[in-house]
Amino acid sequence: MTVSPFDHPLLSALLGDEEASRHFSVEAEIEAALAFERALAEAEAECGLVTADAKAAIVTALASFRPDTALLRAGVAKDGVMVPELVRQIRVAVGEPHGQQVHFGATSQDVIDTSLMLRLKSLVEHLGLLLTETIIRLASLEDRFGDRALTGMTRMQPAIPVRVADRVTAWRAPLQRHQQRLSEQVRRLLVVQFGGAAGTLEKLGDKGPAVRAALAPKLGLADAPQWHSQRDALVDFAGWLSLLTGSLGKFGQDIALMAQGGADIALSGGGGSSAMPHKQNPVKAEALVALARFNATQLAGMHQALVHEQERSGAAWALEWLLLPQMAVATATSLRLAAELTAQIESLGH
Amino acid sequence: MTVSPFDHPLLSALLGDEEASRHFSVEAEIEAALAFERALAEAEAECGLVTADAKAAIVTALASFRPDTALLRAGVAKDGVMVPELVRQIRVAVGEPHGQQVHFGATSQDVIDTSLMLRLKSLVEHLGLLLTETIIRLASLEDRFGDRALTGMTRMQPAIPVRVADRVTAWRAPLQRHQQRLSEQVRRLLVVQFGGAAGTLEKLGDKGPAVRAALAPKLGLADAPQWHSQRDALVDFAGWLSLLTGSLGKFGQDIALMAQGGADIALSGGGGSSAMPHKQNPVKAEALVALARFNATQLAGMHQALVHEQERSGAAWALEWLLLPQMAVATATSLRLAAELTAQIESLGH
Amino acid sequence: MTVSPFDHPLLSALLGDEEASRHFSVEAEIEAALAFERALAEAEAECGLVTADAKAAIVTALASFRPDTALLRAGVAKDGVMVPELVRQIRVAVGEPHGQQVHFGATSQDVIDTSLMLRLKSLVEHLGLLLTETIIRLASLEDRFGDRALTGMTRMQPAIPVRVADRVTAWRAPLQRHQQRLSEQVRRLLVVQFGGAAGTLEKLGDKGPAVRAALAPKLGLADAPQWHSQRDALVDFAGWLSLLTGSLGKFGQDIALMAQGGADIALSGGGGSSAMPHKQNPVKAEALVALARFNATQLAGMHQALVHEQERSGAAWALEWLLLPQMAVATATSLRLAAELTAQIESLGH
Amino acid sequence: MTVSPFDHPLLSALLGDEEASRHFSVEAEIEAALAFERALAEAEAECGLVTADAKAAIVTALASFRPDTALLRAGVAKDGVMVPELVRQIRVAVGEPHGQQVHFGATSQDVIDTSLMLRLKSLVEHLGLLLTETIIRLASLEDRFGDRALTGMTRMQPAIPVRVADRVTAWRAPLQRHQQRLSEQVRRLLVVQFGGAAGTLEKLGDKGPAVRAALAPKLGLADAPQWHSQRDALVDFAGWLSLLTGSLGKFGQDIALMAQGGADIALSGGGGSSAMPHKQNPVKAEALVALARFNATQLAGMHQALVHEQERSGAAWALEWLLLPQMAVATATSLRLAAELTAQIESLGH
Repeated sequence: MTVSPFDHPLLSALLGDEEASRHFSVEAEIEAALAFERALAEAEAECGLVTADAKAAIVTALASFRPDTALLRAGVAKDGVMVPELVRQIRVAVGEPHGQQVHFGATSQDVIDTSLMLRLKSLVEHLGLLLTETIIRLASLEDRFGDRALTGMTRMQPAIPVRVADRVTAWRAPLQRHQQRLSEQVRRLLVVQFGGAAGTLEKLGDKGPAVRAALAPKLGLADAPQWHSQRDALVDFAGWLSLLTGSLGKFGQDIALMAQGGADIALSGGGGSSAMPHKQNPVKAEALVALARFNATQLAGMHQALVHEQERSGAAWALEWLLLPQMAVATATSLRLAAELTAQIESLGH
Repeated sequence: MTVSPFDHPLLSALLGDEEASRHFSVEAEIEAALAFERALAEAEAECGLVTADAKAAIVTALASFRPDTALLRAGVAKDGVMVPELVRQIRVAVGEPHGQQVHFGATSQDVIDTSLMLRLKSLVEHLGLLLTETIIRLASLEDRFGDRALTGMTRMQPAIPVRVADRVTAWRAPLQRHQQRLSEQVRRLLVVQFGGAAGTLEKLGDKGPAVRAALAPKLGLADAPQWHSQRDALVDFAGWLSLLTGSLGKFGQDIALMAQGGADIALSGGGGSSAMPHKQNPVKAEALVALARFNATQLAGMHQALVHEQERSGAAWALEWLLLPQMAVATATSLRLAAELTAQIESLGH
Repeated sequence: MTVSPFDHPLLSALLGDEEASRHFSVEAEIEAALAFERALAEAEAECGLVTADAKAAIVTALASFRPDTALLRAGVAKDGVMVPELVRQIRVAVGEPHGQQVHFGATSQDVIDTSLMLRLKSLVEHLGLLLTETIIRLASLEDRFGDRALTGMTRMQPAIPVRVADRVTAWRAPLQRHQQRLSEQVRRLLVVQFGGAAGTLEKLGDKGPAVRAALAPKLGLADAPQWHSQRDALVDFAGWLSLLTGSLGKFGQDIALMAQGGADIALSGGGGSSAMPHKQNPVKAEALVALARFNATQLAGMHQALVHEQERSGAAWALEWLLLPQMAVATATSLRLAAELTAQIESLGH
Repeated sequence: MTVSPFDHPLLSALLGDEEASRHFSVEAEIEAALAFERALAEAEAECGLVTADAKAAIVTALASFRPDTALLRAGVAKDGVMVPELVRQIRVAVGEPHGQQVHFGATSQDVIDTSLMLRLKSLVEHLGLLLTETIIRLASLEDRFGDRALTGMTRMQPAIPVRVADRVTAWRAPLQRHQQRLSEQVRRLLVVQFGGAAGTLEKLGDKGPAVRAALAPKLGLADAPQWHSQRDALVDFAGWLSLLTGSLGKFGQDIALMAQGGADIALSGGGGSSAMPHKQNPVKAEALVALARFNATQLAGMHQALVHEQERSGAAWALEWLLLPQMAVATATSLRLAAELTAQIESLGH
């Protein structure tokens, strides 16, 4: 047990996903923040708000910039976000006379939220690949065992025989709908955030929309009006994560129930016990259930964070930080475990 | 205080919505169940599984059928659903020799879930109208006051001036995205449920898909494979409900915060106090916050219900019953209150 | 399906508890509110704040008072609580010159919260009796079957044999700890609420504490300083409710799992299916799981309501109304079902 | 943003608590696990189940034992817990002929759950000290400013004047009740877990209770029957954590609301903005609200984990691991921030 099993040196072997976690490391966050500042300087130079010299100085300085993380940490303790201190350090690195052009017209939330989007973009690709892999493996199970019989169970009681294909379909079909859902929501999700102090880009005069339109493609994101206090796309994405882990939790629960008696399933690679060496515990199946219930739990908090008061809520925003990254990693883990568990199924049905 | 404020003779005046509630009454549920049984008899007759005489007898009997609700109640206590007893009563009403053709090949869950879909279809229309109305009223606020100034507030502190239009946009834009989300998910949601005992329509031989395809349009629903244990569309809809109340909760919170000092808003029709007759409490704004937090809370339970074991889970299914109808009514109430509150805004900004 | 199964004419047969629900009816709420106003007049007369004549007039009027509930409903829609309108009606019923002495120094929240406590007191007694009954029945199971063997199951896999008494103890022991917890928390819970407009009893001069001390015993409650914005005792009670349903959910889950194969349990009175007449569904066991997950879900919202801003939060308070009564009824139902289910167990172990 | 802000190198400066986190590190967990195995060998030697020589060999080996954490990690991935692999390594370290006496009669859950209790014991002391400190600081505020006036606010509207002491009492009194609650529940919480494979200590013959009674005091824990599948004390503790952060969230919300206008409060040390250098954001107050809503969210999952099936549930157990440590750290953080925030209050009232 540790503060978060997703970060835990031992438990993350079962409950974590290394690639997903990487996107939420400090290194990835700072890299994304610097990418934002660089792209912003470029976009503002294109629009004539920053001189070519200043842009060049900023881009050059950023290329070799390494933050003082002890000071960043102190900045977070004081300001609640690392950005004021990070910007201060970058400005020092750029030096006079161009330092003040760094972060021109932007605010902390622009950096943090856009940085999040950059990393969610990679995460979405990772999840998409894992999801496809899981679907393929389930389809393969269906190919191999689909025509065999299985005791249909309704309300925890033997009902009538069904085919293996019937149950595997109930595992696979929701995953395919989740692919469809992702493709629909991703275009609302992966957008730039750029609004300035209170969302109005007031320092950019009439060039705000043009800068934003230039900024977005440099970062590989779509352009969209600022959404400082409109968190619906992020919360909807959290819902998608929990839909996915919920469907995989059903798969895990079914496998664990089948493995009780064992007549309808043969599983390899179960977990051992320190007291009963003969046991083959369906560890991954149980973990799928735990992760489903974990994400279902977290999702309530993400929806609470929709009540994001006024132009920016420090409280609702920090609540997202406490919830979303773990939901994302839980989902990647769940997909990884589901794919592995599918591969452990040596036989289904009778 | 009562068991549910949505059903409460007094509190529902504030926290309820009559039209939404109507769809969850016993009367509406039984009417929808009978519609299912009638359409099923017709579809099965078209496919040659039920004779024309039997179909005619069933349709005739259903036209004047009135259930014995005391026996239905006893049936629920014993069976967990009303359907076995309801079908028994309908069969008696149809009489020999056609009674046994009633509900042919179907199971309780087909009736309950399809009946739910019939009522959600009406509910979705109701919510859609309320949502459009709220958007129109917010757009009207923007027309009237959009160019005025407002003190932008970030992290609960005065930031810089913004325009009224900036804040109203933050209320309206998410609602328009919710319209888009609804249009995407509704085609996955409003589908017939027909699977028989364990989802395989085993009594219908090779005619299962044909019957289902004939059944769906008779009920105004789309055709889809059975989804007994695949609850993702329903849970996704619950997420949409909570996204909507969350966005309206932000609106309510903002109004209540503005009404504190009162410099930037004039509201009519506030609530009175039994101790301080001078007060004008922003009762509807507070209710929007309460309903947002209510739905956010409930949503976690709906996602827990995704872990729907095997071919049918009595536990996960009953959990949905305890949650979804209240979420739907909370959302209708929230939209109603938001539209009313918008109309109470006499002035915004300065 | 209806707005709340606890109020539903059919579903409440399974998922409701009549006696618990009665305490949350409008009738019970108004009766308790009138009891508060009567006791308040008496206490204030004792302390010389209300004349003996006024007290007599109020007591007499209340004895035959029947509110106009249509106006109460309109009052809720406007004020968010029924109290301003209820007090107005009572004052009219008392008439001149004593009407204005009704509700002297009190506020709506005093009435609503004390009324809730009066009803929770009865509810706690009801739950206590049901809990004792369930413990007795489990102890009886242990007496009858305790020495038989049972297949111990860990991580959903057969482990080693245990005795029936081992498993029954795991059902019973937490219930006994819940009795202990209740006895500890009930003295913090069942207290009067009396604070006036903003909690300071400012209209009572230096007699506030004396009136409150006189008021509490007249209502059978303990005396305590006002707790308008301190909701911890109520939320702690909600936690107790969910601990109880959680423990019973484990019992239900175990029964449903045992009933799958059936070797270690014989159950009478299972539920029937509309498609498979041979089935004996463990309906009550499943309902215990559903109610456990329901209360676990609601509890998050009660804890959100602890963030009760300033002297009184309309939003956080209304959120409690939407959650607590249903949690209470869910708990009574769960206890009722557990006792019934225990009685259906004809044999345990082998 | 990182997987968990509690573990995050930067964000933990605001949202973490170093001492609380330390108890959930791998190092602390392994140290506690080794303490369990040592105390077990000693207790079993006292009861004649392990020879004096074996005990001495085990104690000696444990004194210098350092686990191979890479193999522990692999063990978790396979077995779901580190214990089978850890025991294997300890047995190798002890060597023949005594190695097999290590962990005699115990199971993985005994190690993990008792290890958790050892660390919760330290954590409870830490939280208790922080809680006392916060209460003292609030009392000091009351001493300094208690008699000043403050605008009472009900339903987000100015009500009547109250004294500063009235509002400070509403912050302090619940904390004192939380002290009382903790003292009541801690004796149910801080107990040893020792049950063996399925809770029956079957390998110890009739000496199970004696070994357990000898084991508990060696670890500084109380003796209690095994509670493998009875998680109520742990879940009740989680409830206490969330009650505490909820009360502190109310404090934070009140401070943030007071700081809006600023007439009734003077705060030092507010956070800065990257866009508006003049701002003094109430960062710690906002964090208190976020942490309250975080714990409220997590608590629902802990209550879901009460449905802990049969003799041991891998799924429900892992769900606790994902939730409880973060709740504990969130609570320590919240207490730390509340104490710091109190110290930043330079003036209250007018």
